[in-house]
Amino acid sequence: MKKIVFATHNSHKLEEIKDILGAEYEVLGLNDINCLEDIPETGDTLEENALLKARYVKEKYGYDCFADDTGLEVYALDNAPGVYSARYAGDSKDSLANMKKVLKELETKQDRRAQFRTIISLILGDKIYRFEGKIEGEVIEAGRGNTGFGYDPIFVPNGYSETFAELGSEIKNKISHRSLAVNKLKAFLL
Amino acid sequence: MKKIVFATHNSHKLEEIKDILGAEYEVLGLNDINCLEDIPETGDTLEENALLKARYVKEKYGYDCFADDTGLEVYALDNAPGVYSARYAGDSKDSLANMKKVLKELETKQDRRAQFRTIISLILGDKIYRFEGKIEGEVIEAGRGNTGFGYDPIFVPNGYSETFAELGSEIKNKISHRSLAVNKLKAFLL
Repeated sequence: MKKIVFATHNSHKLEEIKDILGAEYEVLGLNDINCLEDIPETGDTLEENALLKARYVKEKYGYDCFADDTGLEVYALDNAPGVYSARYAGDSKDSLANMKKVLKELETKQDRRAQFRTIISLILGDKIYRFEGKIEGEVIEAGRGNTGFGYDPIFVPNGYSETFAELGSEIKNKISHRSLAVNKLKAFLL
Repeated sequence: MKKIVFATHNSHKLEEIKDILGAEYEVLGLNDINCLEDIPETGDTLEENALLKARYVKEKYGYDCFADDTGLEVYALDNAPGVYSARYAGDSKDSLANMKKVLKELETKQDRRAQFRTIISLILGDKIYRFEGKIEGEVIEAGRGNTGFGYDPIFVPNGYSETFAELGSEIKNKISHRSLAVNKLKAFLL
């Protein structure tokens, strides 16, 4: 079976991908190849960060690899927080503080449209491929709902009245930016 | 079997702990309790961050929990980078940039002593316990060695002439700050 690395230390994300690609690929996580360090995410865009991570694995460990990065892009904020989504209010990765900052910045804006966007970069041999998933919606004025993480409590996807955090993981996983990108990767690989 | 949560998303760290405590405890990771978000690490000390994470799990999910935090403390730098070790040169968690910053700051200093320190906070019921592991050594002038991560290439533990990155994971795991803290936790729990 062909080996491929998914550049994550996170067991949940890895299991999710194994379920999707496991019939055709032996999917390894970073821990499985003894890459215990954080891979620097120094890019200015989601595309750069995903590619940096995939390239790091390919160059240092020799494996074919894919990596992802995700951000919330708020139109009226010039697509911020974007690549800085996880650390918008500081490097402590405090979701609550991040949401507060976005809500504060949107106070004076009429346009509350936003999108979640996931980029997956894949390196196979010497070729690079990119897969994108996005979902448009609106940032509401105060958080609602308990499931999920990040900006889920303040994002209502188009066509729904509940936030991602109210919709729950089952529905979110069906319609999300991340699923869309993963499905494109899957269609390509299988 | 008693359940206990180790506040990490990292499958490697979780497996390591399961090997140590698995005979007596069912050890769950954050993903296993469906906590998919990063827990904010807003503390100013290793102790605070470890306790924040353990408390977050106890309060939000109800489980007994332990959490760890680790830092490199350089004496001549007022114990910096300490709690900011992973993000000393910026929030992109770039180990190379972090090391460069420490080396730069040490250029004018005579005293290059430092210690790695790990704190584990444990919440059992309504009681809080703390376990510390540390190892003293020196920061050398340029990195050496390929294994490990973080500041391993520039840290030589006392009694050795190789850096952590040269010693390799087998030796490092026997003598490290982290092992020492984990062993204290183990002795307490078992």
